[in-house]
Amino acid sequence: MSTTTELEAPTTTIQPRAAVIAMPEYHPPLASRSQLRLDFNENTFAPSPRVFATLQSLTAEGLTIYPEREHVEHLVAEHYGLQPAEVMLTNGIDEAIHLLACAFLEPTDEVLLCTPSFFMYDVSCSMMTSNLIRIQADDTFAFPLERFLAAITPKTKLILIATPNNPTGQTVSRKQMLQICAAAPHAVVFADEAYFHFHGDSTLADVPSVPNLIVGRTFSKAYGLANLRIGMLAGPAQLLGYIRKVSSPYNVNGIALEVLPEALGDQPYLDWYVSQVTAGRERMFTALKELGVRTWPSAANFILMDIGPRHKEFVAAMREQGVLLRDRSADPGCDGYVRITIGVEDHVTRGIAALRTSFAEIGWTPAESRSAAGKSEGEREYE
Amino acid sequence: MSTTTELEAPTTTIQPRAAVIAMPEYHPPLASRSQLRLDFNENTFAPSPRVFATLQSLTAEGLTIYPEREHVEHLVAEHYGLQPAEVMLTNGIDEAIHLLACAFLEPTDEVLLCTPSFFMYDVSCSMMTSNLIRIQADDTFAFPLERFLAAITPKTKLILIATPNNPTGQTVSRKQMLQICAAAPHAVVFADEAYFHFHGDSTLADVPSVPNLIVGRTFSKAYGLANLRIGMLAGPAQLLGYIRKVSSPYNVNGIALEVLPEALGDQPYLDWYVSQVTAGRERMFTALKELGVRTWPSAANFILMDIGPRHKEFVAAMREQGVLLRDRSADPGCDGYVRITIGVEDHVTRGIAALRTSFAEIGWTPAESRSAAGKSEGEREYE
Repeated sequence: MSTTTELEAPTTTIQPRAAVIAMPEYHPPLASRSQLRLDFNENTFAPSPRVFATLQSLTAEGLTIYPEREHVEHLVAEHYGLQPAEVMLTNGIDEAIHLLACAFLEPTDEVLLCTPSFFMYDVSCSMMTSNLIRIQADDTFAFPLERFLAAITPKTKLILIATPNNPTGQTVSRKQMLQICAAAPHAVVFADEAYFHFHGDSTLADVPSVPNLIVGRTFSKAYGLANLRIGMLAGPAQLLGYIRKVSSPYNVNGIALEVLPEALGDQPYLDWYVSQVTAGRERMFTALKELGVRTWPSAANFILMDIGPRHKEFVAAMREQGVLLRDRSADPGCDGYVRITIGVEDHVTRGIAALRTSFAEIGWTPAESRSAAGKSEGEREYE
Repeated sequence: MSTTTELEAPTTTIQPRAAVIAMPEYHPPLASRSQLRLDFNENTFAPSPRVFATLQSLTAEGLTIYPEREHVEHLVAEHYGLQPAEVMLTNGIDEAIHLLACAFLEPTDEVLLCTPSFFMYDVSCSMMTSNLIRIQADDTFAFPLERFLAAITPKTKLILIATPNNPTGQTVSRKQMLQICAAAPHAVVFADEAYFHFHGDSTLADVPSVPNLIVGRTFSKAYGLANLRIGMLAGPAQLLGYIRKVSSPYNVNGIALEVLPEALGDQPYLDWYVSQVTAGRERMFTALKELGVRTWPSAANFILMDIGPRHKEFVAAMREQGVLLRDRSADPGCDGYVRITIGVEDHVTRGIAALRTSFAEIGWTPAESRSAAGKSEGEREYE
């Protein structure tokens, strides 16, 4: 080799952990997002006005102080009828998942999850073990309870279930969740309720009585605080104690901690936002049925659409119309499927108008959606 | 056992990873901190007015959007004359250390560090390996370079060095740091420059030419952004690539990302704050010498004081005077030592006044400081 100049990057043989080489990477499409954001299942409007008022009341000196999460955890626990030791606040639900993996997963442990689901489960768990057991849902995307239960082994250490599930919108009932907890008493069962508010069924109240259940919530969705990064874990004090051990005491920033009690306290705002989404979801389902797009039932603030082979062309056409969508084709069993977020009334209206224009523009026909529009049948062969 | 009632916490035999059981916990004293905060080495005043102006210009809708760190990493890289791939922003430097451990440490790897130093090194590294090699400084707290170099083995994977060091204030020169990098080409050398601004010596400019050097910086100290949680890693793109893999793409909140360019851009503010600290540090050293308190040279925004056996009584007396200090007695080799943060002029004045009053009140005498006041000699036997 020639002599090294300062312009050449120095090379090293230093390797990361073997698991880090093997694990997948999460690359969200992060281009300009200045258009109507129906791609990340965010609140499309704004958080409670009480949150914004708190933000504007912050002092400059306060920015210099290390943020203490403990007293806010007490307030949150009280809000949910839990003990303070049963609640831990995290830097978004992403960190919650990461810390679960750090706390519990030895290389020989098995992780059980249903696919398609939230991809960060794969990322965080693969960092600690290569034994990820993925149970693929059939094309109805109904939760495959029997196959899931059958996959539990003595090595199962962590079970991850999102309800409502992302990107399918499907749910796992409280009864099913408790059945899984009972079937795997040696495993931590993580019930990811990020989209709970658009649904209503929950196991949060079961935390005090189920020794292996940890419920996750985020304030990024209905509460509209995605920018601030705040999520929570609710579970037995004993299990959360292990998670606290692997966490920095300063994992949640002080602004998120300041505004959280205001967000939690403004129930009228939350009710309003949820009603916007549930009404908008019905309008969107109706419009998609009229347009001949196959969909699946959704209990979340998004709908998965079966667009078919021209999914990329469709997403590009929507972007031309000023609306961002999320192509889920890379998810297992989701080739040709595109997800659209349901926001407030005006944003749903704009989304529907853009759908009509885009479909017309690219000459899309319902035949491209591989089953009859609006039905949720299991006979589909397309993969 | 009696029958379980709803009031009893359910028990489980679920165990965390063996390393999680073995690792130490970090319990910062987090009682009320409404007094003068000379305990956590924070900026005691406020960040740049440009930061606060940006905070006040934020929109409510912006709070709903997932924060993208990449474009800010480009700005930060440009600021430091680095390539974008050579910079990664983190949720404070705590997360940076945690991610270094996650990315690089197999259970058989060795970690090399000097003690006393920042305790989060122990916490994060113990989460991944039990092979922590701690080189204890002698009572001068000078960096034990020769013993450190002699402790490098083929198994050494990560070397952690804070300069200036916390809680001692001592430094490792750029030349020494590069010598360590050269002596352990098979290991990642992490130069933690959290307190860089109060010192000036740095290896940041060496990042493009040293293949195993990763420099850490925080914006919690001189920049006054501790509440927002923002730190950075600068290192070879190849090594940072592994760290990005184990990180959430949304690890840094959006407000920290919004204000960071303003903080970096306000050099006059930074210069002013640093000059306040360096002038205050001299005033504090002078006062401590007059009071007969043994200290060590400090290149940081704090001074370590040798109070002796009555360190708890002294810290309590200072709290009575409205000033919070940090008792470092639990740190290895630090029994009886208390750390005081240097802030802006008025806060140093208040700190000095409280010291005089507290010493008088508890009848403290220089004989309790085990060596002659103000000297940094190595003959001390006290341990």
